[in-house]
Amino acid sequence: MRQVEAIIFDVFGTLVDWRTGVANAARPVFAAKGIDIDPLSFADAWRGEYQPSMERIRSGNRNYVSLDILHLENLEIALEKFELNREFNATEKEELNHAWEKLPPWPDTVECLNRLREKYIIAPCSNGSIALMARLARFGDLRWDAIVGADIARDYKPAAQTYLKSAAALGCNPGQTLMVAAHNSDLDAAAACGLKTAFFPRPKEHGPGQTIDLQATGAWDFSSRSLPALSDGLLAVD
Amino acid sequence: MRQVEAIIFDVFGTLVDWRTGVANAARPVFAAKGIDIDPLSFADAWRGEYQPSMERIRSGNRNYVSLDILHLENLEIALEKFELNREFNATEKEELNHAWEKLPPWPDTVECLNRLREKYIIAPCSNGSIALMARLARFGDLRWDAIVGADIARDYKPAAQTYLKSAAALGCNPGQTLMVAAHNSDLDAAAACGLKTAFFPRPKEHGPGQTIDLQATGAWDFSSRSLPALSDGLLAVD
Repeated sequence: MRQVEAIIFDVFGTLVDWRTGVANAARPVFAAKGIDIDPLSFADAWRGEYQPSMERIRSGNRNYVSLDILHLENLEIALEKFELNREFNATEKEELNHAWEKLPPWPDTVECLNRLREKYIIAPCSNGSIALMARLARFGDLRWDAIVGADIARDYKPAAQTYLKSAAALGCNPGQTLMVAAHNSDLDAAAACGLKTAFFPRPKEHGPGQTIDLQATGAWDFSSRSLPALSDGLLAVD
Repeated sequence: MRQVEAIIFDVFGTLVDWRTGVANAARPVFAAKGIDIDPLSFADAWRGEYQPSMERIRSGNRNYVSLDILHLENLEIALEKFELNREFNATEKEELNHAWEKLPPWPDTVECLNRLREKYIIAPCSNGSIALMARLARFGDLRWDAIVGADIARDYKPAAQTYLKSAAALGCNPGQTLMVAAHNSDLDAAAACGLKTAFFPRPKEHGPGQTIDLQATGAWDFSSRSLPALSDGLLAVD
């Protein structure tokens, strides 16, 4: 493992709690408008459009646009599902779209990143844009050495180029780069590109009834019970 | 000025002292090999190949390659000028090329960046690669919100796309983006793209005999005597 020089991280779910964050942004807006819809259900519906919207780009049916644009389009779809589209004007939708820049880090995230940064180059490898990741990092006090991910490759994970161009942008070969995620599918794709892989679960990402990604389902280079445990392991490697 | 959301910075010369840094890296290597050449003159010769090497790419005569690759090629040229090429094997050249990742910040750089970051999104907009900027930031404790510049645009300043794509990557229009440089030519190009501009001099960038960029030669939005004075001004804007 010592040849690992850079650690790249999935962000949504792995490092920040998107479900709580989006719900927290929607709650006061819904209350002010007298909308009686559970903000957590709304967050799930909004996030539910995430993969389909990226798939149109991954499949080549649409040119790359940043996740900020997809999020805004997906907001329209989510609002329509709840028959709320007429309740929001364009400015209010854009304002609500900034919810994705204000997602709370999980309680262990900041300290673990700071510890890992003492030894490794660290960067997000997210489907979020550089603009989004920069604002999210400012909000949550995440100190990155650089931001890589979808904007660098102009394609979305799990497309191979997203991992390969992210590693290259950091000046690393795939084998010198460790991908960390609480999602087995993300690591599947990274491993296929020759990156090192590390898993730990975030059992509350999807709320109390979560059924997926509760444990490692692949032979990852590291599988830990938590981010602090993984960090201890990575810092102990000579 | 209050509409400015992001400040992007030239790095070599403006924030770090490349001449001293490169000379400091070369000095012990030359001493160990018994080479009696002034390391500062060698730094000047190496840097002298910087613009010609980028111009081949800006002009379309060569596809984009990162500055790390150009620096290594330019090292060959500089060594040849001093008839030193046979003194260094490939590994030693690659090692010396890392000099560009270990350039000392000017004494006022770190504090001013930290102050400006409290109010603005800050990022380097350098011709250095993301890989180079990340390592330089770790070396000098520069805390960036993101890294933009040549690697984002796959073209070199002063090509317009380098400024425009850097601003866009930060989620800003050109007019919401302020380019800071100690080089008037950099600001000429940024202003032509619609970016806001700020100048201050680094009168020792090229050593004691410096004759260029000692003062503003354009009608920049800000012209200050120093980076601390510029920072005071930018932080005082409502």
